[in-house]
Amino acid sequence: MFETAEVGAVLSDRAFRDLSNRLRLTLINLQQKARTADFPTLVILSGVKGAGVIDTVNLLNTWMDPRWIATTAFDDPSDEETERPLFWRYWRSLPAAGTIGLYLGGWYTDPIKDFTKGAITRAAFEENLLRVKSFERALAQEGALILKFWLHLSKREQKRLLPKDNKDPLVGLRASDTSWTTPGNYESYIKSAGYALRNTMEGTAPWFIVEGGDDNFRRASVLTTLSDHLERHLQHRRKLLKTRHKAEKKVRKRAKKETASSLSTKSRRIRAPVRRVLDTLNMKQSMTTTAYAKAFHQQQTRLHDLQRRARERGLSTIVILEGWDAAGKGGAIRRLTFALNARDYRIVPVAAPTDEERAHHYLWRFWRHLGRAGRMTIFDRSWYGRVLVERVENYIDEETWMRGYAEINDFEEQLVEHGSLVVKIWLHISKKEQLRRFNERRKTPHKRWKLTADDWRNRDKWDEYEDAINDMVSRTSTTAAPWHLIPATDKRYTRVKVLETVANALAGALAK
Amino acid sequence: MFETAEVGAVLSDRAFRDLSNRLRLTLINLQQKARTADFPTLVILSGVKGAGVIDTVNLLNTWMDPRWIATTAFDDPSDEETERPLFWRYWRSLPAAGTIGLYLGGWYTDPIKDFTKGAITRAAFEENLLRVKSFERALAQEGALILKFWLHLSKREQKRLLPKDNKDPLVGLRASDTSWTTPGNYESYIKSAGYALRNTMEGTAPWFIVEGGDDNFRRASVLTTLSDHLERHLQHRRKLLKTRHKAEKKVRKRAKKETASSLSTKSRRIRAPVRRVLDTLNMKQSMTTTAYAKAFHQQQTRLHDLQRRARERGLSTIVILEGWDAAGKGGAIRRLTFALNARDYRIVPVAAPTDEERAHHYLWRFWRHLGRAGRMTIFDRSWYGRVLVERVENYIDEETWMRGYAEINDFEEQLVEHGSLVVKIWLHISKKEQLRRFNERRKTPHKRWKLTADDWRNRDKWDEYEDAINDMVSRTSTTAAPWHLIPATDKRYTRVKVLETVANALAGALAK
Repeated sequence: MFETAEVGAVLSDRAFRDLSNRLRLTLINLQQKARTADFPTLVILSGVKGAGVIDTVNLLNTWMDPRWIATTAFDDPSDEETERPLFWRYWRSLPAAGTIGLYLGGWYTDPIKDFTKGAITRAAFEENLLRVKSFERALAQEGALILKFWLHLSKREQKRLLPKDNKDPLVGLRASDTSWTTPGNYESYIKSAGYALRNTMEGTAPWFIVEGGDDNFRRASVLTTLSDHLERHLQHRRKLLKTRHKAEKKVRKRAKKETASSLSTKSRRIRAPVRRVLDTLNMKQSMTTTAYAKAFHQQQTRLHDLQRRARERGLSTIVILEGWDAAGKGGAIRRLTFALNARDYRIVPVAAPTDEERAHHYLWRFWRHLGRAGRMTIFDRSWYGRVLVERVENYIDEETWMRGYAEINDFEEQLVEHGSLVVKIWLHISKKEQLRRFNERRKTPHKRWKLTADDWRNRDKWDEYEDAINDMVSRTSTTAAPWHLIPATDKRYTRVKVLETVANALAGALAK
Repeated sequence: MFETAEVGAVLSDRAFRDLSNRLRLTLINLQQKARTADFPTLVILSGVKGAGVIDTVNLLNTWMDPRWIATTAFDDPSDEETERPLFWRYWRSLPAAGTIGLYLGGWYTDPIKDFTKGAITRAAFEENLLRVKSFERALAQEGALILKFWLHLSKREQKRLLPKDNKDPLVGLRASDTSWTTPGNYESYIKSAGYALRNTMEGTAPWFIVEGGDDNFRRASVLTTLSDHLERHLQHRRKLLKTRHKAEKKVRKRAKKETASSLSTKSRRIRAPVRRVLDTLNMKQSMTTTAYAKAFHQQQTRLHDLQRRARERGLSTIVILEGWDAAGKGGAIRRLTFALNARDYRIVPVAAPTDEERAHHYLWRFWRHLGRAGRMTIFDRSWYGRVLVERVENYIDEETWMRGYAEINDFEEQLVEHGSLVVKIWLHISKKEQLRRFNERRKTPHKRWKLTADDWRNRDKWDEYEDAINDMVSRTSTTAAPWHLIPATDKRYTRVKVLETVANALAGALAK
């Protein structure tokens, strides 16, 4: 696959000068336009040692406005990084919408290096690349422009250029540990790289193989490719936004009409007469005060002991609390934390995203909150909002929430693979019970603030939520991260059950 | 100072029950109100082992909405933390406006523990406390409500309570390493703690000493204090906001009138006939193309080599580039980075703060960008905005920018103490030269985007800016972090000079 980049391509100084005047202006203008666009740009520069990766990075920083470019090279991971899944460091490095992330090797350096050196098996190498692929796909699907450049040299060219390179103190010193990419290793290195490139070549994150022997040619190739793609992507996103606005307008208009026409709208849709997973729950589960006192203390003590051991072992736990409004999430979380050492847990309430969060991929805000080794992170609502409220309320289109399941499964898989425990809990109450609780809240002064207009609005869409919950459970309940559905009619039963569920999961993970 | 908390204070169950019903409602209402307020609340809970710190934290999390409370206990620092100044971990833990940060010991645990154990000298202990004091003062001055509780037990009471405590598995297990706070160590521990408390007792960050022997009494004391102060602070901030709005309105009205009345406004103010620091610069400094080529290459090679050594040594550098609009900051930064390995530096462009940044203290956004060991962080504009643009444009009142100098000096002192190198550069051009450059930008297509209405507006206030720059230099140029004023009329001279300045500073730091 590298043959096209071993032809001795050259561009004359004059041709480059002519080109560069126009190109420079185009690039800076495009960058300015992209500043206010709704997507980030990721440029990965990788390649054979001596083929000019650093020079290209510097040129980009010189020709464009470096304030909106962040250059990242991944070093050995810090302890805060090793305590989280591998991709945590990649997620935290992502550029915000309107900016450019420039990566030296990016997430490709480690797998290619490890495989070339024989540090990982072919299977592990392949798995790494699959993960990279779904990472890039997730970003691209939310609009990111991803361009990947492989700067190439034939073995002969590398031999010719490297000694020369080393004479210049600047270039020589700039290189980091790339001993494994020298002519001596050429064949095995190129073989791994070729394999990696072929297996991560996607329409939404293409590789461009560029011959690096001639500075003019390489610079011109990379920069025109970037300029072309940035321009097209800007147009594409603008058009998409327009189409979306139009579609949204239509939906809003229709919704208005429906509301106006009658109150029977809700019942108009005929639901399939299937037995849903939530219907299988025994909603009459309850507990006497005496039984509760005993069981609660028992589970609390047990959980406390287990979490202490988890902390010692460095076992991280991610607890996800989801459930109907007024199902008792807050109370359950408080009882849960009461058993824990305050230094061992953190609650992440999932509310409206901040503007920094909005400028990133949907999952970015959850990645950033992952706790360090041995901690319990409790999400009060979570990434499942994507396939629940965002789906039901039509905040996103079907294609987006549909791929949400895959993205979520991939995310949780990474957590589990890294050794974290994922506990997902759904608190279920009946529609009637919810109404009772809403009314109670209305009447109790110190609970009144909990009840909002949103709650009533969500209640109106009970059936749609039931469908969404059913789909969520069937599509995201995995062996490694199963859903625990808890009938939450009786508060005592619920609280003990939540404690027990988390404790059981911890006990299981610690027994491994 | 602990006598008042050794009197055997007790509250009956009945009295506590009566109180708690009202208190709970009040607290939850206040918390709701505080959600939309412009300040964060910091509650530090510290004290004698067995006096109920954990119980109080749990109670707060139970009685209030734990979603807006973040509980923090500082463990041994991670490597990402040790690579930055000590207070970096405290800054990154700060609650945003509208939320509550609950600290177990907070920034008091380490100094008290270290001094009790004899790990640090009295002088170091005192210095630590001074730093804590100015940290809290800085937060309070931007509106934070800070309440610090010392939960106390007499030695006799501690002896009485500790064994009982240890029988309950929950309490026993909850305790972290607090061996140094047991009765055996009581005297020396209490002495250090007393010293710490006395020396960090401030009107804006008061300590409350609460007897911890009786649960009811302790809980009631802490919670009523919190509720009282939160309520008063809410009123205070609301009033302040109103006054500020009024004052701003007045200023705007006056400004409008002045603009309308005549164009001579600018000259109306009579400036003192002093020779300003910027007047001392030789603005005719320049460099021929030949001299430039040689000097530039020389300094670049030198800088490259020095930064490589700095990276090896773990020496972090903070470069601050400030200067007039069109003085050539961007060009200088690009030339600077061209000499560096892209993995060793990061540019932080300082633009409008994000909403997460706005919800924190002014300096928070700079603390969060500090790089890891061995890196160079280049700030394109910086925290000096506070005493330049924010002062001149009246974005903040005089009291605020006046204390800005102290806050900045304190911040930079922490950087230097931690072993970082701070290089502050001001690029100076004359008013006439700026006009020439603005016109040139207007005429050059690929530079046109650089020129904004703001630039012309700032130019109108040239004299005010000169005053501000003069003050800035005189108030923040320290031996450890001096200002380098560079005459920037000639671009070649400027670029070489910037490289040389950074290189010289690095060479100096490496020679130590």
